[in-house]
Amino acid sequence: MQIDDTMQRAAAAFEEYRYTTPAARATFLETIAAEINARREALIETAHAESNLPVARLNGEITRTTSQLQLFATLIREGSWVEAVIDTARPEHTPARPDIRRMLLPVGPVVIFGASNFPFAFSTAGGDTASALAAGATVVIKGHPAHPGTSLMIFEAITHAISKSGMPAHTVQHVTGDGNATGRELVMHPLTTGVGFTGSFQGGKALLDYAAQRTVPIPVFAEMSSINPVVFYPDALASQTAQLAQTFAASITLGMGQFCTNPGILLGLKSEALEDFISQLGTAIAAVAPQKMLHQGICEAYTKGRSHMLETAGVTLVSESAPPAALEAWPSLARTTGKALLTNPALKEELFGPYSLMVVCADKAELVAVLKSLHGQLTTTIVGTPADTAQYKDVITTQSTLAGRVILNNPPTGVEVCAAMVHGGPFPATTDQRFTSVGTSAIRRWVRPVCFQNFTDDMLPDALKAANPLGIWRQVDNQFVR
Amino acid sequence: MQIDDTMQRAAAAFEEYRYTTPAARATFLETIAAEINARREALIETAHAESNLPVARLNGEITRTTSQLQLFATLIREGSWVEAVIDTARPEHTPARPDIRRMLLPVGPVVIFGASNFPFAFSTAGGDTASALAAGATVVIKGHPAHPGTSLMIFEAITHAISKSGMPAHTVQHVTGDGNATGRELVMHPLTTGVGFTGSFQGGKALLDYAAQRTVPIPVFAEMSSINPVVFYPDALASQTAQLAQTFAASITLGMGQFCTNPGILLGLKSEALEDFISQLGTAIAAVAPQKMLHQGICEAYTKGRSHMLETAGVTLVSESAPPAALEAWPSLARTTGKALLTNPALKEELFGPYSLMVVCADKAELVAVLKSLHGQLTTTIVGTPADTAQYKDVITTQSTLAGRVILNNPPTGVEVCAAMVHGGPFPATTDQRFTSVGTSAIRRWVRPVCFQNFTDDMLPDALKAANPLGIWRQVDNQFVR
Repeated sequence: MQIDDTMQRAAAAFEEYRYTTPAARATFLETIAAEINARREALIETAHAESNLPVARLNGEITRTTSQLQLFATLIREGSWVEAVIDTARPEHTPARPDIRRMLLPVGPVVIFGASNFPFAFSTAGGDTASALAAGATVVIKGHPAHPGTSLMIFEAITHAISKSGMPAHTVQHVTGDGNATGRELVMHPLTTGVGFTGSFQGGKALLDYAAQRTVPIPVFAEMSSINPVVFYPDALASQTAQLAQTFAASITLGMGQFCTNPGILLGLKSEALEDFISQLGTAIAAVAPQKMLHQGICEAYTKGRSHMLETAGVTLVSESAPPAALEAWPSLARTTGKALLTNPALKEELFGPYSLMVVCADKAELVAVLKSLHGQLTTTIVGTPADTAQYKDVITTQSTLAGRVILNNPPTGVEVCAAMVHGGPFPATTDQRFTSVGTSAIRRWVRPVCFQNFTDDMLPDALKAANPLGIWRQVDNQFVR
Repeated sequence: MQIDDTMQRAAAAFEEYRYTTPAARATFLETIAAEINARREALIETAHAESNLPVARLNGEITRTTSQLQLFATLIREGSWVEAVIDTARPEHTPARPDIRRMLLPVGPVVIFGASNFPFAFSTAGGDTASALAAGATVVIKGHPAHPGTSLMIFEAITHAISKSGMPAHTVQHVTGDGNATGRELVMHPLTTGVGFTGSFQGGKALLDYAAQRTVPIPVFAEMSSINPVVFYPDALASQTAQLAQTFAASITLGMGQFCTNPGILLGLKSEALEDFISQLGTAIAAVAPQKMLHQGICEAYTKGRSHMLETAGVTLVSESAPPAALEAWPSLARTTGKALLTNPALKEELFGPYSLMVVCADKAELVAVLKSLHGQLTTTIVGTPADTAQYKDVITTQSTLAGRVILNNPPTGVEVCAAMVHGGPFPATTDQRFTSVGTSAIRRWVRPVCFQNFTDDMLPDALKAANPLGIWRQVDNQFVR
């Protein structure tokens, strides 16, 4: 009943919010950013106590969060994101072609689930919320139970921004409660038109399955599970051993491995150079000091999963750091063979934490077989020199089809928030590989195209009027013009 | 087992076809069009025998089909449809931003279900197939059992084109068989990556439900059910009565009403002018000669559905044509009140054929209530003068949210194949309102964005190379350039 009231209010607010001007929504997003900045100290203190994340990281994450809000404000103030397409009338055609114009419009109230590993940037006022509000959708946030105080403080900042910007009172609402029951009710509510989620495979799949039970289907954008395979090609491995070991040890243990893009599986061809790399990488990982994980549940899952991996036939421990204290993660590197991986699908499952599995492949054919056996991924990384990329072109072609983001000679951690970013990928990396949850095109998750035929200019939305009053880029009779 | 073989071949062909050049695929599409044209006489003869559609209509539909193939050839030869987005490196940023580039790439083999009401333009080499092949996806066609000979002849034309263009032999395959079992197997096959369908709500919903049972979710683009509400506003009704009656009688009975965009529900405010319009519309519809429907099943469903509608409490017959012969449709106009419609949801269901229901609303509030009660639609039409659109702005606002295409003073039948077209809309008009099945952006159903980070120029796809060798429009550092 409480959720029904919430969704009714979100739908009512949408009937007003959907018609706000882009400029008004941009100011609203900037005001949220300002309200968050005004609470920075207190937010960091609360989030640090709730998530164990270091203060410096949280400070940086708040900056990323306010930058994302600013980025979407800039996007909608500029305005071309609506993809205005205009085909002018052709009265001389048989039959005469009417004037037809299309643009993107918001779908309705959406439900956003906060992520535990980004208490700011992918939670209450994170990228999902920012993109939905920018699109003109109203938002119901399910706060993550691992950082309830942080979530409520951010919601308070949003509430102040709503009031200061004169937006409808229920443009954004916040609900808490038992994850499963509340989540189910939110996803299945008839007035919900879309869902955003970042978290575990189990969590995202449950939401997708709830949505499948609805009378009216809605999209679920769940970013779930990825082991981000990195292939180390021979020439790079031999020529940059020490540097690669340092770079990837840092990437694997960054934030105690609590990133969607953590490189959880490393692949290479059996060779002395690879053995040397494994040794140096192991040494570098062993030197990393254990730190606290986000919460008890994640720490227990990591500890149990790590033990399980290390007890699996064919898997051996390469190295581990000093033993962790309570709540801490245990940075570790394990190894196995391509053959073992091909016979044991469990080795391809995500283990959320500072762990990576080096897969030593007997030859190129086995490497290709391993790559083809992998699930869909957020990222895949090619570590190779020009000599490698020339020699292993066919392997790289196979590797490049695995993920939403294909990277050359960069670690996969670190996701730029920009126009070209794709933080998405084939299932189970996400539930809908056609969309991204990071970068400006994340806004497309909350809209649909609507076309207006034979409209008079005064009746058209501003983005489609003849004079182009918003000054946006438009595709007019198949030419981009502004 | 047979379907498994088919999908394995489609997946194998995809590994080759996905890397063909846009120019080669464009030539392939044009060759299909040429092969169809070369068989035009025989195709019309066969399709006329199988579908009862008039020869002139079938001739026009073949032209539309070859035009669609040509349109997608032009689209991919021009090339900007891939949405190339480039964010160049920013080494001066902290941390340094790598070069990130994104474009659309095909997802894999897709399954297309032919439609009964368009044996050419939405069947074997119709819009779905053309858009998928243009995108670089391989296609498995489930031929519609109502026109098996036509479907096989078209497939033969495609096979010749494959051979002449040097495309992989299994780029397009054709399967027949019992609709339900074969359809289920095709949709649930692990190698299938997308589904296109045009047909009944029952058919589309079944495919969507099969897809929900898959381990790996895939999109189902089903265009299903729409009654295309037309609102006649008072001033237009009073000033253009006779002309509107002729225009809409023609639209309702065009092709014996066997179009997705057939205006199945008409709305107006109780008045003398409305009564006059109903009377003239009824007279015009009664003057239309019955013609044969597509097949026995559709005729029986229409006959039964029409009787059921006319026996419903609150519904009365306004007029009907001369009685139909066997297999023929019975053009009919019925009427009811807004109140009756609001209490009987069955009146809002699609009746596929030359039938429309005029809903007389007691006042503006009832009209708005009726509009709000309607399901999602492909189209909705506003018939109004400038005086109407000024006076009924709030009603028009409500009406405009109903559909994928909002039309002013045109009948909804006739769907332009152009860049701005949206032939889609909220459920149950389609299963995914974010996409269109007509027009050039239909190609987006078969692709996903992939981003390339820190790639060297020689390793990038042509669409993303620095020199822009394809000469396409690209968004570079947030500016559209070519």
